[in-house]
Amino acid sequence: MDLYEKTIGSKKIYDGKIIRVRQDRVLLPDGRESTREIVEHSGAVAIVPVDNNNGVYFVRQYRAPLEKILLEIPAGRLEPGEPPEECAKRELAEEIGFMPQKLRQMAFIYSSPGFSDEKVYLYLAQDLVKHHLENDEGEFLEVVHMPLPEALAMVTDGAIEDGKTITGLLLASRYLPL
Amino acid sequence: MDLYEKTIGSKKIYDGKIIRVRQDRVLLPDGRESTREIVEHSGAVAIVPVDNNNGVYFVRQYRAPLEKILLEIPAGRLEPGEPPEECAKRELAEEIGFMPQKLRQMAFIYSSPGFSDEKVYLYLAQDLVKHHLENDEGEFLEVVHMPLPEALAMVTDGAIEDGKTITGLLLASRYLPL
Repeated sequence: MDLYEKTIGSKKIYDGKIIRVRQDRVLLPDGRESTREIVEHSGAVAIVPVDNNNGVYFVRQYRAPLEKILLEIPAGRLEPGEPPEECAKRELAEEIGFMPQKLRQMAFIYSSPGFSDEKVYLYLAQDLVKHHLENDEGEFLEVVHMPLPEALAMVTDGAIEDGKTITGLLLASRYLPL
Repeated sequence: MDLYEKTIGSKKIYDGKIIRVRQDRVLLPDGRESTREIVEHSGAVAIVPVDNNNGVYFVRQYRAPLEKILLEIPAGRLEPGEPPEECAKRELAEEIGFMPQKLRQMAFIYSSPGFSDEKVYLYLAQDLVKHHLENDEGEFLEVVHMPLPEALAMVTDGAIEDGKTITGLLLASRYLPL
């Protein structure tokens, strides 16, 4: 079956700091027209930082779209041209004050492929070495440390709600001896 | 540490079919001002439909933001006021032509809490009963059936890239005997 759509027009809606929004006109596989609403994003990394005792570092952070604080693994947006691995190291230094001696890409995910091109690279960071905390200007967060099994229980009972964090923890638990 | 932001202004940017976009002005915890770009979404469900032999049903679907076809678990947007469980059954009927005798909520995830309020409810559907395929108007997709272990291998090797699908499969593998 032909599943492809052909873009036949595009209109810019919004050009923000973090997202751009456009509305495309597409030709559906059956020849009819439709519109697609698309949120462009530069991409991001998210890292599960695990110490030698299977303890994981998290950050608590206010999320304006939800008007609440979420418990998440360290994460951040890619700067233009920045390799994801460099971004992962930078975010770990900025958010939890550690540098990893081992950094392994576990997967990447499209977080909302129905309306956004956001791609998130998921890393497992190990052999953590203390680094001075390079707090990002205007970023307010609190570091939380927890054993991995406890974090996995929080996934199952619904206390952890962030998609990339849940995926990162579930993937990490497949790589690590518990 | 105080992590909360206070919204002090809001500007509507776009009112689409699927998303609304607004730009808020917020007061940061240190008293300075900043802006937040927020994509509103009505929420969605995603379902891992598993038959009695641990075979999983997927759909292949073109995703305009990525300009490519993704392999995903059945999913769809909540209609206004629709209970997530009803939505899950509806989407299963529309997309793969089965109704589940057992439907269990595994988790919910915020897919992109940095810029969107989208919340996705993840279900495990079992005891699938054949139902006539109620294709949604203007939706083009192809049903794929695969053993769960094969699908999990596709997560690890990067062939499955959709966030909710990866999370759903990893969660399902914790509930099911493999």
